[in-house]
Amino acid sequence: MAGKQADIEESLTFTPKFGADGLITAVATDAKSGDVLMVGHMNEEALRKTIASGEVWYYSRSRKALWKKGETSGHVQRVVEVRIDCDQDALWLKVEQQGAGACHTGRRSCFYRVVPLGKSSAAALEFRDAEKRFDPAKVYK
Amino acid sequence: MAGKQADIEESLTFTPKFGADGLITAVATDAKSGDVLMVGHMNEEALRKTIASGEVWYYSRSRKALWKKGETSGHVQRVVEVRIDCDQDALWLKVEQQGAGACHTGRRSCFYRVVPLGKSSAAALEFRDAEKRFDPAKVYK
Repeated sequence: MAGKQADIEESLTFTPKFGADGLITAVATDAKSGDVLMVGHMNEEALRKTIASGEVWYYSRSRKALWKKGETSGHVQRVVEVRIDCDQDALWLKVEQQGAGACHTGRRSCFYRVVPLGKSSAAALEFRDAEKRFDPAKVYK
Repeated sequence: MAGKQADIEESLTFTPKFGADGLITAVATDAKSGDVLMVGHMNEEALRKTIASGEVWYYSRSRKALWKKGETSGHVQRVVEVRIDCDQDALWLKVEQQGAGACHTGRRSCFYRVVPLGKSSAAALEFRDAEKRFDPAKVYK
């Protein structure tokens, strides 16, 4: 293995690797249940603000803007722990989700549909934990 | 909200959204502990093979090749459940990790370092759950 790769993997130097689009993938899980709440993206500023403040900031690819999670909804994510992976191109955020849920559709998690196994990719999804905890129309005015 | 977006979010039609690079992000968690094991990427073929076989296939961006997790190491990931997120551009795989670990560095998870909070981005990482479960030099000959 090249020295550089080993440095990234075994070093305690934080060298987050942002993609060509300037973003790094961030997976937020519920610190208690372990459920994946959402997969977001951070630019360098969002990551810096998250580490400094202990509340999660993302970068919205659709809106092309820095975005504090919960700034409109109040559904802030308090950081319990941040980890980085072996090649330092992905982050795992263990969070305490404030408010009713993480998903803008009103659910606790963005992952509320199951892909059936052993079938073709054309098989229908199945709702799972898809109960709406809040009304998006009221929260996002 | 536009009809199309609502369709993607509320429909049971599986319409995974691959990026410009033809890939979709896949987060693998340990089905029992909830720990994030790794963040990988799938092209359409890797996703199809995963759904059909119940074992996880990824697409390696560095090697530019389809790749069955565990094909060399034996550390296969058996799929317990696959979920897709609201905008259908990320997958959550709950897996039973076979063998000693998911990470090619020898750890159980690729996320074996913590980023300290409330400090600057230049602060040193801290090892956490970083015990090596296998010797990569022996497993990857």
